[in-house]
Amino acid sequence: MLSEFELIDRYFYRPPRANGPVQLGIGDDCALLLPPSGELLAVSTDMLVEGRHFFAGANPHDLGHKVLAVNLSDLAAMGAQPIAFTLALALPLADPTWLQPFSEGLFQLADAYGIELIGGDTTRGPLTISITVMGRVTKTDAIKRSGAQAGDELWVSGTLGDARLALEALQGHRALSPELLGKACERLHRPTPRVSLGLALRGIASAAIDVSDGLYGDLNHLLSQSSLAATICADDLPLGEALASQPTDIRYAMALNGGDDYELCFSAPANKHQAVLAAGKHSKTNVTCIGKLDLGSGIQVHDRNGAMVSVSNQSFDHFTENLSS
Amino acid sequence: MLSEFELIDRYFYRPPRANGPVQLGIGDDCALLLPPSGELLAVSTDMLVEGRHFFAGANPHDLGHKVLAVNLSDLAAMGAQPIAFTLALALPLADPTWLQPFSEGLFQLADAYGIELIGGDTTRGPLTISITVMGRVTKTDAIKRSGAQAGDELWVSGTLGDARLALEALQGHRALSPELLGKACERLHRPTPRVSLGLALRGIASAAIDVSDGLYGDLNHLLSQSSLAATICADDLPLGEALASQPTDIRYAMALNGGDDYELCFSAPANKHQAVLAAGKHSKTNVTCIGKLDLGSGIQVHDRNGAMVSVSNQSFDHFTENLSS
Repeated sequence: MLSEFELIDRYFYRPPRANGPVQLGIGDDCALLLPPSGELLAVSTDMLVEGRHFFAGANPHDLGHKVLAVNLSDLAAMGAQPIAFTLALALPLADPTWLQPFSEGLFQLADAYGIELIGGDTTRGPLTISITVMGRVTKTDAIKRSGAQAGDELWVSGTLGDARLALEALQGHRALSPELLGKACERLHRPTPRVSLGLALRGIASAAIDVSDGLYGDLNHLLSQSSLAATICADDLPLGEALASQPTDIRYAMALNGGDDYELCFSAPANKHQAVLAAGKHSKTNVTCIGKLDLGSGIQVHDRNGAMVSVSNQSFDHFTENLSS
Repeated sequence: MLSEFELIDRYFYRPPRANGPVQLGIGDDCALLLPPSGELLAVSTDMLVEGRHFFAGANPHDLGHKVLAVNLSDLAAMGAQPIAFTLALALPLADPTWLQPFSEGLFQLADAYGIELIGGDTTRGPLTISITVMGRVTKTDAIKRSGAQAGDELWVSGTLGDARLALEALQGHRALSPELLGKACERLHRPTPRVSLGLALRGIASAAIDVSDGLYGDLNHLLSQSSLAATICADDLPLGEALASQPTDIRYAMALNGGDDYELCFSAPANKHQAVLAAGKHSKTNVTCIGKLDLGSGIQVHDRNGAMVSVSNQSFDHFTENLSS
């Protein structure tokens, strides 16, 4: 059996890049990072647990991608440039046929953003993966949840709902054609962190949050931190290709209360409408204006005819829902 | 049942300190940290898993202490000043009778070092706790594993072996008087990270490592990174009070291959012998010279009479050993 040190050496050790921010990488008590001069360090942690965030037996290459992607998504929502990450990994077995594709999926995404794995911990235990990402952003560029203003337009990136639809299809609750299931599963298993968009929105967006637990619930966090209300048009929500094929009530429910979308929901002054579109184009990311912000609290959802759409806040909660339930 | 957000709010949210390095704490997509100006950021991650690093049903107050202590121990070994940490927590149940003492144990130690919890993640799952700590250290002050020189003296802080002895007693493999068991368990459950000593050793120690998996194995890492050999006297090893009561072979074995000691093993030039003693005094931490470093590789252990002590490298490995085995 592989020891902990052999495992790290074989699958996770790569020498730090010359002239990068990593002064000392894996292999000492700590990593040493040259912090961004004159900028802030943005830090976020997410943990994925088998049976809760992913199915037992999930494809390890996808999992390596996803666990880093969901963390990068948090940096994206802050407008931060990713620098480095740490990995803590509990594994039932040091199985090379799992570790090899897992580390490939992880490093493929890391390389796409030029970031380095600087340290971590591996241990035996129920499959649990925790990543801490670090990024850089200036104090004035940081896009907080609290910066939205009354009158701002509300936007969302990419498309919503396909990840949740895929989850329900895999659980046998919904039927999808093999083609649509494949597309929806791609969204569930290999989300794209909107890092480029987050960077392009610096100086443009007034507030942002990443949509990980469902638009309705996550938007509520942004609103409560900005002390504002939102009005959104359910028919303006950009839908995933699979979700677009579903009946209206399912479309609304999954776009609003999906989860695992990893899109950005953000606000921007109305006079920056063109600048937002340009940021989307620059970052090759679709952006859709879905409503506006006003004084008050809560979210009002209407359809294209102005009729109210009733939505319960069924934000995905990792304490009350379970993949296997 | 508590939702994830209620849980964080009730047990883990505290507003960032004014004028501290934390510009934005828990509650946004990322925390924002003012990095140490002109210094490096030291980063380390450790994960503790129920049944592997601690027994099922372990005292949650102790556990809150220990999971932060083992991470701070890594900063100590680098000579870094702790700044902040993140916490990822998988819990079978959001149980207030567990969360309350766990967070108290965690924050008690955090407050002792003036550091802040800046973010994290909570989810339901098998009890698994992962912390990432961040600290500051200048490039010249950082104490790496690779800096030791031939002729340096070898030192260890505090005492060795009581944590492993406690573990074996709790597993029923050894008998201890209630008084000694209590003392040994204190070492196992509530280790003291040697942060003050690490800071006091800046500019004095040439290399350091924290002793978490057993002195013999951890010293081997320091030696291989410094390309040196060590000669140590087994009778000079500072023993925990409980271990001191045991027969010679047990004393040697547990001091050398214990695990969970969280002491510092470090080297310093022989002409800094008095400076090391002063650093120990200044940081109120016992320090003991246990041997010296030479050209070559490997560790030679002898007793006070010069007779060789045979030691197998049985460093604690979290992939090959199990608390419950």
